[in-house]
Amino acid sequence: MAQKILVIGAVALGPKAACRAKRLSPDSQITLIDEGEFISYGGCGIPYYVSGDVSESSELRSTSFHMVRDVDFFKNDKGIDVLTRTKAVNINRDTKTVDVRKPDGMTDTLAYDQLILATGAAPRKLNIKGCDLDNVFTVANIEDAEGIKAKVAAQEIEKAVIVGAGFIGLEMAEALADMWDIDTTVIEFFDQIMPRFVSANLAQMAMRHMEEKGVTFCLSEKVQEIKGGAKAEKVITDKREIDADLVILATGVSPRSELAKNAGLEVSPMGGIRVNLRMQTSDPDIYAGGDCVCVQNLITEKEAYFPLGSMANRQGRVIGTNITGGDAEFQGAVGSFVVKTFENSLSGAGLTIEEAIREGFDAVSVQAAQFDRSHFYPDKDIINLELVVEKKTKRVLGIQGYGPATDSTVSRVNAVAAILDQKPAVDRISNLELAYSPPFSSAMDIINALGNVAENILEDRCVPVDQEGFAEIWVARGESDDYCVLDCRAEADGKPFEEKYAPTWKSIPHDQLRARMQEVPKDKKIILVCNTGVRSYEAQLDLRHRGIGSTFNLSGGMSSLKKWGIRFD
Amino acid sequence: MAQKILVIGAVALGPKAACRAKRLSPDSQITLIDEGEFISYGGCGIPYYVSGDVSESSELRSTSFHMVRDVDFFKNDKGIDVLTRTKAVNINRDTKTVDVRKPDGMTDTLAYDQLILATGAAPRKLNIKGCDLDNVFTVANIEDAEGIKAKVAAQEIEKAVIVGAGFIGLEMAEALADMWDIDTTVIEFFDQIMPRFVSANLAQMAMRHMEEKGVTFCLSEKVQEIKGGAKAEKVITDKREIDADLVILATGVSPRSELAKNAGLEVSPMGGIRVNLRMQTSDPDIYAGGDCVCVQNLITEKEAYFPLGSMANRQGRVIGTNITGGDAEFQGAVGSFVVKTFENSLSGAGLTIEEAIREGFDAVSVQAAQFDRSHFYPDKDIINLELVVEKKTKRVLGIQGYGPATDSTVSRVNAVAAILDQKPAVDRISNLELAYSPPFSSAMDIINALGNVAENILEDRCVPVDQEGFAEIWVARGESDDYCVLDCRAEADGKPFEEKYAPTWKSIPHDQLRARMQEVPKDKKIILVCNTGVRSYEAQLDLRHRGIGSTFNLSGGMSSLKKWGIRFD
Repeated sequence: MAQKILVIGAVALGPKAACRAKRLSPDSQITLIDEGEFISYGGCGIPYYVSGDVSESSELRSTSFHMVRDVDFFKNDKGIDVLTRTKAVNINRDTKTVDVRKPDGMTDTLAYDQLILATGAAPRKLNIKGCDLDNVFTVANIEDAEGIKAKVAAQEIEKAVIVGAGFIGLEMAEALADMWDIDTTVIEFFDQIMPRFVSANLAQMAMRHMEEKGVTFCLSEKVQEIKGGAKAEKVITDKREIDADLVILATGVSPRSELAKNAGLEVSPMGGIRVNLRMQTSDPDIYAGGDCVCVQNLITEKEAYFPLGSMANRQGRVIGTNITGGDAEFQGAVGSFVVKTFENSLSGAGLTIEEAIREGFDAVSVQAAQFDRSHFYPDKDIINLELVVEKKTKRVLGIQGYGPATDSTVSRVNAVAAILDQKPAVDRISNLELAYSPPFSSAMDIINALGNVAENILEDRCVPVDQEGFAEIWVARGESDDYCVLDCRAEADGKPFEEKYAPTWKSIPHDQLRARMQEVPKDKKIILVCNTGVRSYEAQLDLRHRGIGSTFNLSGGMSSLKKWGIRFD
Repeated sequence: MAQKILVIGAVALGPKAACRAKRLSPDSQITLIDEGEFISYGGCGIPYYVSGDVSESSELRSTSFHMVRDVDFFKNDKGIDVLTRTKAVNINRDTKTVDVRKPDGMTDTLAYDQLILATGAAPRKLNIKGCDLDNVFTVANIEDAEGIKAKVAAQEIEKAVIVGAGFIGLEMAEALADMWDIDTTVIEFFDQIMPRFVSANLAQMAMRHMEEKGVTFCLSEKVQEIKGGAKAEKVITDKREIDADLVILATGVSPRSELAKNAGLEVSPMGGIRVNLRMQTSDPDIYAGGDCVCVQNLITEKEAYFPLGSMANRQGRVIGTNITGGDAEFQGAVGSFVVKTFENSLSGAGLTIEEAIREGFDAVSVQAAQFDRSHFYPDKDIINLELVVEKKTKRVLGIQGYGPATDSTVSRVNAVAAILDQKPAVDRISNLELAYSPPFSSAMDIINALGNVAENILEDRCVPVDQEGFAEIWVARGESDDYCVLDCRAEADGKPFEEKYAPTWKSIPHDQLRARMQEVPKDKKIILVCNTGVRSYEAQLDLRHRGIGSTFNLSGGMSSLKKWGIRFD
C-alpha cells in the first residue's frame, strides 16, 4: 500500500508510529513534521540531564547505540522524511491536506492519505504576573532543559523555587538540591505532594525524606506572582515571599488538541482528542495518540487523560500497525507510574483512596510495611504499600507504594498493575505468585501480606488506624485520657516509651500479653503498636478474644510512623 | 469452634497454617509436631548462611523482630504447642489419632479433629557408593547447614563438588566459591544448568558468568561413586575423577508422602499428596500443603509438583482459613522462580520452550535484549528475556530472564507471571503497563519489546537465529560458504570483524544499508547482527523489501552472543 502518511509531532508517539508504519509498509511515503528544532527525544530524562546524571542533552536524542536521532538519521536509517521547525496550522479534512508554516515563515500545503496527530501536551500556564521573566522555565522540551542546565552549571543559581509537586516538580527538586546543592523550595497548591497519585500518608513519608535531603515544601499554597527585574527574584504566594533566582513551573500539562478541534474532530471536555480502541479519531483517516488524546481509565471505565511517555510509545505502535492495514488495539490504562525521590521512590497504579472515593466507590485503603527481601538477608529495606479496595466486592481499585529507589517497590506495583483491569479481588493479591528467593523477596512477600491485611480489615478482624489518625490522637493526648498506646514490641523498644509517656503508653511485649492480660486498661480505647503492624494485629485479636474490643492497630507500625514524620520528644 | 488441630511438620507450611488457624479460632487447641530439633526456619536461606551473608543459623529461625521461633515462642507468642523431635509414625483415620514416637523413644497417640500434613520434601537420594561418607551433605535442614558451615569456616575445605545444577546447587556454588574461595565444581546430569527452568540459551549465559567467577561445570555427566576413607576424597563420574574434600548433593527433592499413602490418602503418581482447591486431601478432615503435595500447573492444567517455600506459606494460610470454617482456595501455580548467580540472576514463570514442546504445545521461544533502564540513564544493564509462545494461538506459555542480581529482571517476570493463568496472547505483553521513569525502565520497556518481537516472529516478519544456531554455523564456517554475516552496527564495531573474517563478515551500518544495498551478497544466506537485535531486524525487513529473503536475525544481537560465550579469536 503506497500511501502518504503525514505525522504532526515528532517527539515520542510520532516517530514510533512512523517507524512502525514504515517497517510494515516500506513503500509508504512517510513525513514527520515538528515545530521544534529537536525531535525524538526522551523528555522524561530532562531532570537527569539537569542533574548531570546525563551529561549531554544529545544523549536524550540518541539511540541506545549512540546515534543522534536527527533528520538525517530518520532519512537514512528509517527511510522517513522529517521537516523540523515546521508548524501545522490547519487540517483540511475535505482535501486531505495540512497547511504548514515553514522555517522561513512561508506557508505550504502537505497532502496525506492518512494523518497522525502526535501534538503532545503543553505545560499548563499559570495566569500570573512574572511568568515571562528571565530565569522562569517550564520543563517541556530540550530547549528548556538546556536553558535550566546552563544557569545551574554556570553556578548562577543559589535559590530555586519549583511550582508544583508532581512528577516533574519532585524530579527537578532532586536534580537541583542533590547534585547542585541549590536551596530549593517546592510550592504545591494541594495539601500534599503527588496529589491524586498517592495517598496523603505515602506523600507525607516521601516529603519527609526529601525534607531531610534539604528540600523545603510549602503545601496548600498558591503562587500569585513572580517578581523581578531583568530576571526572576522572588516568588509571591498567598502566604509568603520566597527569594528565587530560578523558578520552574511544573504544574502539569494539557493536551494540545487545538488543531484537532479546529478541524472538527471530537475532543473530550478534558481537552484530549477522542480516539477509538484502534486509536482513530472521529475521522477514520486521522489517528491520534500520546499526550494529546484521552483513553479509557480501565478502573473507572471513564474517559481519562494519562500524559505518560511509555503510553505514547505503545500507542504509537498500535497506530503504526493499524494505519498500514493491521489490526491492533489499545484498551486503555490503569496509570502505572514511578518517580524517584532521592534514595526512595513512589509508585502506583489505579486509584488512590481519595480518587476512589471521589469516583463514588465505597472504598478503604489498607497499608502494609515489610522488608523487600527476606528479613535475614543483609541488604534490605522496609517498603510501604497501600491497597485501595472496594468494601462490598473486595475489588482492588489501586495500589501505591513508597520504598527505596531500587526496583523493589515498583516491581510489586507492576505485578498488581498487570491484573488491575480484571477487577481482581483481594484474595488474588494474597495469592499473587511472585518469584521467591531471599535476595529478592520474602517467603510470604509483602504483596501477599498486603492482600492478607486487606482481607483481615474487610472482615473486621483488624481495625486499623493510620499515621494521620495516630498523629491526631497523639497531639491531643494532653486533653484526653481516652486512649492508651499498647506497645507490643520487645521491652528494649517499648519500655523507654512507657517510661516517658506512662500511663498513656504501656509496654507489654506480645509474647507476654497472654500472661499479663490483666494489666491492659479496660476503660480506654487502645492503640496497638509494634514495628510493622503484624504483632499488634495479633494482639488485637488476643484482646478481642478476651472481650476487649475497642482497639486500633497502627498500620505499618512504628517504622512507618517514623517515616511519616511524627516526632516523639 | 474449640477443635483439636494437629499439624505434622513445623518448618514452613505447618507453622503458617497453625498460626492462621489460631488467629481465626483462638479457642482451638493446636499442636505442631516435628521430628527435627529446629522448627519454623527459612530453608531457602541456608546458602546465605553458608556464605556468611547471614551470620548465625538462628537468624534463619528468627522473626523480623529478632525473636527465635522456638517452642517457647510458639507457646507464648502464638498460643500453640510444639513437640519437637517427635515423629509421626502412623495416622489412624478411623479413630482420628496419630501415633508418634517421642524424643525418649516411647510411643504416644495424639487425637485430632482436623489434621494438617506439612511433611515437606526429602532430598532425592543418589543410589551410589560413598553417599554416607563424612563431608558429604545434602542441603535440607539447619543441621546440614551447620555441618557445612563448620567445615568451611574451619578452613578445612579446598575443593568442593556439588552434584546438581538446580537452585540449591547454584546457590551453594556461589556461597563456596565467592565467599570462601573454595575450588568448586558443579556436576549436572543434564546438558545445561537449571534444566526445565530456563532454556539452554539462558542457562549457557548464566553458566559462563559463573565460570568467569571461578566455578567449574561438568554437564551431561553422571556421578557414579564418592570415594574416601574417613571422609570424602574424590567424586567419580562417568567421565572423570574429581578431588573433593566436601561433596554437596543437590539433585532435587521428593515429596514426603509415606504417612499419607499408608493412611490410604490419595497420592499422585509423582509422589505428592492430592489435594482439592481448599487444600483438603481425599479425607476432608485432613489437609495438606507445601512440599508434600501436588497442585495444578496453571499453564498445562495438569497435576504438578512445585517445592517452593513461598507457595508453602500461601497454601498454609489457605489451610488455616479453611480448617477454621472459612472459605479460601489455592488455584495452582505457574512456578515463578528466581535464583541469584553471583552478580546476575535467572528467573522465570510458566514453561520453557523445551517443556512446552514436551507438553505437546506447538511453541516457539523468542528473545529480547535491552537495557533495564532508559539507555541514557547512567546505571543500567542489558537484560535478556525469553518468551515462550504457542504458535497458532499466540498464547504466552512462559517467560524466563537473565540479568543483573537486582530486581530488574525478576520484576518483569513477576508482572507476566501475574497474568499467565489467563492465557494471555502476545499483544497483552506488548501492552503490559509497567511504570515508566528513566531510573526504573524504558519508555518502550523490554517487556513490551519482547511482546513486539514475538509478534514480529509469529507473523514471519522477523526470522530469528538464536545463539546456539549462530554458534553452529560459525563453527562450521570453514566448511561452507553458504552464509555471510551482515553486521549492521556502526563501522567502529563492525569493521574490525570484517577485516578479520571477510568475506564471511560484512560491515554495513544500518543507516548506510539503503545506499549500499548492491554490496549485499545475493547468493548467500545472510545472518544479520547488531548489538541487541533491533537494527538487524530493521535490516531484515529492508532486505526482504529488496527481494532478499534468505536472512536470519541474530536474537539479542552481539551483546547476547558475548554473554552466551562465543569467542571470536
